[in-house]
Amino acid sequence: MAALRSYVNGDWHTPAEDGVPLHDAVTGEEVARVSSAGVDMAAALAHGRERGGPALAELTFHQRGALLKSLASYLREHREELYALSARTGATLGDSKFDVDGGIGVLFGYSSKGRREMPNSTVYVDGAVEPLSKGGTFVGRHICTPLRGVAVQINAFNFPVWGPLEKFAPAFLAGVPSLVKPASQTAYLTHRLVELMIESGLLPEGSLQLVCGSVGDLFEHLTDQDLVSFTGSAATGQRLRAHPVVAANSVRFNVEADSLNCSILGPDAVPGTAEFDLFVKQLVTEMTVKAGQKCTAIRRAIVPAGLMDDVVDAAKARLEKVVVGNPSSPGVRMGALASLEQREEVRRSLKALLEAGTLVHGDPDHVEVVNADPERGAFLSPLLVRCDDPDQPQPHEVEAFGPVSTLLPYESTEQAVDLARRGRGSLVGSVVSADLGFSCAVVLGAASRHGRMLVLNRDNAEESTGHGSPLPALVHGGPGRAGGGEEMGGIRGVLHHMQRTAVQADPATLTAITGQWVTGGPQLFTDVHPFRKHLDELKVGDTVIAGPRRVMLEDVERFAEFTGDTFYAHTDEEAARANPFFEGRVAHGYLVVSFAAGLFVDPEPGPVLANYGLENLRFLTPTYPGDEITVTLTAKQITPRVGAEHGEVRWDVDVTNQDGASVAKYDVLTLVAKRPETQE
Amino acid sequence: MAALRSYVNGDWHTPAEDGVPLHDAVTGEEVARVSSAGVDMAAALAHGRERGGPALAELTFHQRGALLKSLASYLREHREELYALSARTGATLGDSKFDVDGGIGVLFGYSSKGRREMPNSTVYVDGAVEPLSKGGTFVGRHICTPLRGVAVQINAFNFPVWGPLEKFAPAFLAGVPSLVKPASQTAYLTHRLVELMIESGLLPEGSLQLVCGSVGDLFEHLTDQDLVSFTGSAATGQRLRAHPVVAANSVRFNVEADSLNCSILGPDAVPGTAEFDLFVKQLVTEMTVKAGQKCTAIRRAIVPAGLMDDVVDAAKARLEKVVVGNPSSPGVRMGALASLEQREEVRRSLKALLEAGTLVHGDPDHVEVVNADPERGAFLSPLLVRCDDPDQPQPHEVEAFGPVSTLLPYESTEQAVDLARRGRGSLVGSVVSADLGFSCAVVLGAASRHGRMLVLNRDNAEESTGHGSPLPALVHGGPGRAGGGEEMGGIRGVLHHMQRTAVQADPATLTAITGQWVTGGPQLFTDVHPFRKHLDELKVGDTVIAGPRRVMLEDVERFAEFTGDTFYAHTDEEAARANPFFEGRVAHGYLVVSFAAGLFVDPEPGPVLANYGLENLRFLTPTYPGDEITVTLTAKQITPRVGAEHGEVRWDVDVTNQDGASVAKYDVLTLVAKRPETQE
Repeated sequence: MAALRSYVNGDWHTPAEDGVPLHDAVTGEEVARVSSAGVDMAAALAHGRERGGPALAELTFHQRGALLKSLASYLREHREELYALSARTGATLGDSKFDVDGGIGVLFGYSSKGRREMPNSTVYVDGAVEPLSKGGTFVGRHICTPLRGVAVQINAFNFPVWGPLEKFAPAFLAGVPSLVKPASQTAYLTHRLVELMIESGLLPEGSLQLVCGSVGDLFEHLTDQDLVSFTGSAATGQRLRAHPVVAANSVRFNVEADSLNCSILGPDAVPGTAEFDLFVKQLVTEMTVKAGQKCTAIRRAIVPAGLMDDVVDAAKARLEKVVVGNPSSPGVRMGALASLEQREEVRRSLKALLEAGTLVHGDPDHVEVVNADPERGAFLSPLLVRCDDPDQPQPHEVEAFGPVSTLLPYESTEQAVDLARRGRGSLVGSVVSADLGFSCAVVLGAASRHGRMLVLNRDNAEESTGHGSPLPALVHGGPGRAGGGEEMGGIRGVLHHMQRTAVQADPATLTAITGQWVTGGPQLFTDVHPFRKHLDELKVGDTVIAGPRRVMLEDVERFAEFTGDTFYAHTDEEAARANPFFEGRVAHGYLVVSFAAGLFVDPEPGPVLANYGLENLRFLTPTYPGDEITVTLTAKQITPRVGAEHGEVRWDVDVTNQDGASVAKYDVLTLVAKRPETQE
Repeated sequence: MAALRSYVNGDWHTPAEDGVPLHDAVTGEEVARVSSAGVDMAAALAHGRERGGPALAELTFHQRGALLKSLASYLREHREELYALSARTGATLGDSKFDVDGGIGVLFGYSSKGRREMPNSTVYVDGAVEPLSKGGTFVGRHICTPLRGVAVQINAFNFPVWGPLEKFAPAFLAGVPSLVKPASQTAYLTHRLVELMIESGLLPEGSLQLVCGSVGDLFEHLTDQDLVSFTGSAATGQRLRAHPVVAANSVRFNVEADSLNCSILGPDAVPGTAEFDLFVKQLVTEMTVKAGQKCTAIRRAIVPAGLMDDVVDAAKARLEKVVVGNPSSPGVRMGALASLEQREEVRRSLKALLEAGTLVHGDPDHVEVVNADPERGAFLSPLLVRCDDPDQPQPHEVEAFGPVSTLLPYESTEQAVDLARRGRGSLVGSVVSADLGFSCAVVLGAASRHGRMLVLNRDNAEESTGHGSPLPALVHGGPGRAGGGEEMGGIRGVLHHMQRTAVQADPATLTAITGQWVTGGPQLFTDVHPFRKHLDELKVGDTVIAGPRRVMLEDVERFAEFTGDTFYAHTDEEAARANPFFEGRVAHGYLVVSFAAGLFVDPEPGPVLANYGLENLRFLTPTYPGDEITVTLTAKQITPRVGAEHGEVRWDVDVTNQDGASVAKYDVLTLVAKRPETQE
């Protein structure tokens, strides 16, 4: 059997030794061998830094996002092949889709987020301009730029596709090359995934490397610009995080460790309610999907003391229908664990749990299996433990990483919250209840020990993605036992790969550094109205000043009558005067904004196609009848759209009165056409 | 001499032993003794968690912000006393103001940020609603809630007032109690600061504790809900961060360590330019303020090779005028180092630097001092080193934490960037140049190894706060050697003390948890128009639906004529049809928004005082002549203002057409009066 190759330094490297055999979880057959012997880790890191990083730096966030989308489509075309290999890890087709389709979904998600929420450039601007001086000549703003190192991604065995993609996507979008290290047990699937990604030809050389086998001396070569994302056991995570090179260089180290996630049934959810059924169904799903080998699975099912018997009965009834066996056989609902060693580990943990409770479903030493050899394959029955004393330590301390959950009773909302918190840091907790007060109390009470919390009830059940599914838009990770890390969460996960830097400068310099016009920055005046410039002709800072126009009392009266907005501040001098903010009748804010548009708009057909929105409008000074308004319109940010005939231009608008005071400030958002010959 | 007391468990604790003597930096006299003997660290942590945390949880962000402001005012009244004590650390009056006034400024800054950028509640909502389902019954959002532990704040000796306050303010605003541990050398000043803070009576019991002396076994008792903010040497930071309890519980650990900050002179800044003078002046300032004992001081001055001689001459001329001596004597510009040990440490580091360069100003063994004994006080001359080979390792590795800087030459922009990066992680770097291209290249090239970068030139010099000053609105911290941490940065520093949790639920539940109305959430209809309700009568979800109103072609023509906005899409049927987004003439967006206001406004005087702004407006569907619009206005967020007669209400506005499609969506911002009897 050939050993898996690593992809490093731009080439496929065959290990310098035979390697350790990996076994099919169902049949026990050898699938592949794994070893990283002979891989030059220092050279791989250097290749990422010197080749991958600079290649990614040539691309904008939008271009990287577009590549992620193409990559996702390419993988989707090859997913059947991945499903087939996934079955050898013990996964059912449903499990494989969870892993493979889930991973592809993360790529699509990041592609979309990157293009919607990041600029089409290489610098991400974080937060607003910070005024640092009275005169406005000295201002601050935060920028994020990619770390100039390698994202070392150490994955767990249970999600050989989703796991690596979930770490790769935000790193790639950030502009940081990835070095993927799969867990050995299921490395053959990640290996094929990476082969496909490389074969796609979409990724710049050096932006993705693969090390199958151990990391060897890789950690010795980490610098302050590298980062590590680790998913796996808490013990290994702690050990690696304490590596002296990591400590000496303050290497960013994100840990996502298994945790003792809870699911809490509300006191309202008695048998017969939709929530009771949802709770039991979700519990059984979480026990059996991936044979319970999910870091987000429910380990502690916390239910009203009076409902313990009902939940036991209902769960048993569902568990009895779970068919275990060869995942390629029809009707099989739960496959095998990833390895025989893994099964032994779960049996050991179960023994510890049974010190505190009793087994109400399943037998750790025997399970009926369909179309497989129960001894050669790593099969295990779903195992439900009942623990009537919730203060016993084991259910809150011992994680059996398999199809195992423990039922615990609670007497009061406070106790439910307290039990949820006793996990000392979880990836996810769920509440199943239609009682809004209970759900709020549990979520707010337990939130500081959870990375994600789900409320499930009849109103959202049909569309809910469920307790066990991390989503690219939401943070994945948790405090304490769960490792203290944060992955994904949309752009948050991208920024984790970048350095945030506070920049202090004058407005002109800050405009040049960020690519976004800052108040006080240079304003460019040309003979051509900016609305007559195509996207590729416009420059940040292009400005037009229009007006003045005098706002008359009759304008205000006419606008009130026309629009129906007869608010007293515009129509009743005496009442307006009594208002704490006005000295008399004032013009409508929308009148000011409309007049401003009337002043700055260039009416003839041209590159500006539409005004699609407006942001951050503040009315700063009242406009009284007789005031004269002038408007200054400045191109603030230009965002060409990859593959479109237009892009977006954000304009800064400052409406001032005859005293030079700002009456209103806002951003106008427009769609502007590219020059026909440059449209991609 | 009495030993400094610690403030723990709600009481002042006198140490159980004499303690270690602390000496006046100028006279060598004993100032105090320090020891934490007898302090029950576990009990102190428990007191913070069980008393301080719950007390803070009773207060909203705005109430905490108001207390910070009162505290700042209280300390300002007592600042002369702090200045006097500060002089004993060797500080000049200017140095003392930097420390004391700077610290008070952080309290004011956080008070203001908290009230402007956080809600008047106890849950911070982070980011937008994440749509997780097609039908909208399942949505997500991130909330931040305070960690239910203690913020252990380990401070450095050089800023005995600013340091503790800079850590305390964001923790307090977050709702997390602080345990302050000053560096022993200058603990007597922090001790008096904390005494004043406790004496103010403003702080809830348990929200602030003080341990003078060593931390003892405190780390043994840390949990996943505690966090540590450390400022000091990299070696100590690394050691504490690797503590097994910290690792086992994933305790958040923020390190801010000294770094080899650089300042780079632009090639344009030849002698005679404003920038040349600014560079030299700033260099000398950073060498001498606090006798160079600033973690942000300039250690590496990087200048064009051809300007080395000029910079040496100009710096020497300025340094020769620096009068060293007793800080209480008039004319003294630089005081003493914090201790004789500190001086020995600096002399040792200088020796290492001189392996790579030569001393061009100062003598480490001799300095003329005014009105003090040069042997009993920790006086040292400013010391400028010239190193003509910038590739020597020492200037990039050895930090002399005193009035010491090294001049290094560069030949090209690339080399300047490379030298800046060789600090392997710095708190701050500055560029002094009027050349925009050079400044941009250096900032963007070096940003990923810097927490803060400053561009200084003639345009901002007058208002610049300078290289060495961290500001509450900007992040303070840096990657790699600087510890990899982040403090302050406005609300970012507050969130560092909170757990971010992704919440998934139906809109009604998410509205209840966040306190902010979410699309699809419950809408409450009463007989009373929401504009007739005072702030304290309004409920999140209060809704009015108004309309329909038909938008006629003559309305569009009238609006165009009235406002002057004759953009072709509103006025020219044929041209509008040629636009890729429209099927013919469309109504102005501002007409739609104005008509919507005409529909929902309740015109008579009432609690709604003003519309002060509008946010997130998106035009989603064109409105064609003949379309009928209906507007739904829903109270989204209610923010009472502490101490004011009104508060802010954010309304969700959804304008729909006759087909039920959203035409425009936006938030309207209003000021709404409280009921007269409830106005605070």
